[in-house]
Amino acid sequence: MRMIDLIAKKRDHQVLTTAEIEFIITEYTAGNIPDYQMSALLMAIYLNDMNHDETSALAKAMLNSGEVLDLTMIPGIKVDKHSTGGVGDKISIPLAPLVASAGVKNPMISGRGLGHTGGTLDKLEAIPGYNVDETVEQFIEQVQEHGTAIISATKDVAPADRKIYALRDVTSTVEAIPLIASSVMSKKLASGTNALVLDVKVGNGAFMKTEARAKQLAETLVEIGRQNNVPCVAYLTDMNQPLGYTIGNALEIKESIDVLRGEGPEDVTELTLILGAEMLVLAKIADTTEQARTILEGKIKDGSALAAFKQLITDQNGDASIVDHPEKLPQALTTLDITAKNSGYITGMQTNDLGLASVKLGGGRAKKADLVDPAVGIVLHKKIGDSVKIGEALATLYLNAAAPQEVQDQVLNSFEIGSEKPEPLTLIHEIIH
Amino acid sequence: MRMIDLIAKKRDHQVLTTAEIEFIITEYTAGNIPDYQMSALLMAIYLNDMNHDETSALAKAMLNSGEVLDLTMIPGIKVDKHSTGGVGDKISIPLAPLVASAGVKNPMISGRGLGHTGGTLDKLEAIPGYNVDETVEQFIEQVQEHGTAIISATKDVAPADRKIYALRDVTSTVEAIPLIASSVMSKKLASGTNALVLDVKVGNGAFMKTEARAKQLAETLVEIGRQNNVPCVAYLTDMNQPLGYTIGNALEIKESIDVLRGEGPEDVTELTLILGAEMLVLAKIADTTEQARTILEGKIKDGSALAAFKQLITDQNGDASIVDHPEKLPQALTTLDITAKNSGYITGMQTNDLGLASVKLGGGRAKKADLVDPAVGIVLHKKIGDSVKIGEALATLYLNAAAPQEVQDQVLNSFEIGSEKPEPLTLIHEIIH
Repeated sequence: MRMIDLIAKKRDHQVLTTAEIEFIITEYTAGNIPDYQMSALLMAIYLNDMNHDETSALAKAMLNSGEVLDLTMIPGIKVDKHSTGGVGDKISIPLAPLVASAGVKNPMISGRGLGHTGGTLDKLEAIPGYNVDETVEQFIEQVQEHGTAIISATKDVAPADRKIYALRDVTSTVEAIPLIASSVMSKKLASGTNALVLDVKVGNGAFMKTEARAKQLAETLVEIGRQNNVPCVAYLTDMNQPLGYTIGNALEIKESIDVLRGEGPEDVTELTLILGAEMLVLAKIADTTEQARTILEGKIKDGSALAAFKQLITDQNGDASIVDHPEKLPQALTTLDITAKNSGYITGMQTNDLGLASVKLGGGRAKKADLVDPAVGIVLHKKIGDSVKIGEALATLYLNAAAPQEVQDQVLNSFEIGSEKPEPLTLIHEIIH
Repeated sequence: MRMIDLIAKKRDHQVLTTAEIEFIITEYTAGNIPDYQMSALLMAIYLNDMNHDETSALAKAMLNSGEVLDLTMIPGIKVDKHSTGGVGDKISIPLAPLVASAGVKNPMISGRGLGHTGGTLDKLEAIPGYNVDETVEQFIEQVQEHGTAIISATKDVAPADRKIYALRDVTSTVEAIPLIASSVMSKKLASGTNALVLDVKVGNGAFMKTEARAKQLAETLVEIGRQNNVPCVAYLTDMNQPLGYTIGNALEIKESIDVLRGEGPEDVTELTLILGAEMLVLAKIADTTEQARTILEGKIKDGSALAAFKQLITDQNGDASIVDHPEKLPQALTTLDITAKNSGYITGMQTNDLGLASVKLGGGRAKKADLVDPAVGIVLHKKIGDSVKIGEALATLYLNAAAPQEVQDQVLNSFEIGSEKPEPLTLIHEIIH
């Protein structure tokens, strides 16, 4: 088998076999295929696509390039959740302790911020002491005993994905559905989960801007799960405005605590309950999502969900007192209100720009080596459909340095104000089994 | 300007500007753009194409990456010819001395065999002593004094093309029209020619298998010439059977001498006269191709063309006595006839396979470092339309070692024999100005 012939096959719209895909991944990971051949193949995949069988084979080959956790010693059906990433998307943080409090075993290997989106690990690290780098043994023990653990992938997980991702990043081949889907699934399957709920974001704050692309990605992810005997349910959910009212690491931890207290914003609470209910069904703890939702609402009401969050933090060396005293979370030195220049209704939000503005304040990374400031970010006061008066605050910037004029303008211009109240957005666009 | 953004532009079917293309070529040649980014771009160009302006800009940028010969001290219009390559295509060898004898200044920078095709330089090197590595000064002086010189490109000519070609070769991005056209033209324009006749081969022995692709390439080449103020005329010519009756280096030199004596095969003689006549018109030595053809036929008849070939050989340190004594050319140790297994008419020829068979006998290179055996090759006894009787020789292999059974079979199977005499092939398919 020669790489040059396999590049030519994909270039000519032919289908690569499983054996060919295994050869590519094994030899590339071993350093026997040079980057310049791999990048030509990646561009051919970007432009000519892969079918579901090829994409599944790619995910499996990448998965098998590294360590796959064996969670069989933990009884029951392990269920995880993955989001394709959005702005203000802190769902994993209330979700993991919530479903754990209802009996789900949730082994969660999570990621960091990417582009304009935040990352669950960056958010959790806003909690003093929280350690995302557990050993495999600690991870398994914690899931077994308390139902959930949220950690970073070790270097041994899917090394092929790490190497390919770095190459995609510099060759303009990131946003190809087979490459996105195989990357996600190779890492998620490595955690040893038995089932998976997928939150595929769609809209101007998502990587998938159109319904068609998001649906295609969702179907691909579900199919990869099916071919690897891991049942997946994908929710296409709205990302045409940020989730909740906070963007920024400590700010989003605070909002997550609110959700677990039953006092969170409606959209974050609703999405947490919907995805959590699906996880309970996949774990066979409930027969229907309606039944599951009732269970979860009870766990919020009786304080079990909040207690599970304290347990999660304690298990990972964090200071769980922040749950009752959120003022102990890192605080920004100063704030600055961004005020409306005219009156009307919020008719749209440039969600991508709001995410980038938070990154520029220090809440995310422009380069891999950048440090993240846990305290900074943006609190929104208005979202789509809200009325606003001239001079009223649209958002507040949380700052540890002067806010560049560019960022102030970017946040201001992210709010579209019109004279007519728009139709409300639909949170769940579609469910794909 | 960032390479990653330029890759994304081409990936997204956008048009690259001249400044962007210059940036890519300058920075890649200087080693500031890595191979893995260039190969992603090459695949995007292969799949998404380039328009004529982009391709011209690419050719010009590649041309300007190296030395461009200044032939202004040679009076008159310098005219060159280029073929896209075929099997048995020795046209340059009789053509250069023929047009030189009629007063054309023909500065020819030529190439070596590629894939299944032979190369003019390899053929000339079958002549004892012939030196293809002249200095620029020798080259200019020879063209000025005797009308033609056929040499190899120096390392200083279009270094960007050399680097990109090597990368295309290992990333399955060779056969893209904008990349082929810019590669050809960057080298041809570097010779300082003022006009160019292009022989674009089409058929089963050509790199362009279809009329449509060949026409597209021809139009692209002509347009690059136009944008660089070098008038070009492209002939689409038939390559569904080898040109002439010989394939192999010394064998083709012998056949070229026959043409210059007026005793050559009809197709080689005809194509030499047609392309030569066009060169005379471009050089303004004749007003019409008819008038030009009469001049050239006279130069063959009166021996001037043959004398010019002797002069060319002598000028480049070769032994010109081979012209009158072709037996002094390298001779194969033995021969083997390939005989027909049934009777009928030759209805088709697998031209590509005949070229590959000659390469396998040692007449060409499988790898760059391979040595070429000048003596070996194939002499055809039958071509399309000829009748053949069972047991009659179809071809003779010229050998310096036992002929592998695989090669014998390949040559035998290259002849398609049917019961009905086919329509004769048309040599000239189309002329593109």
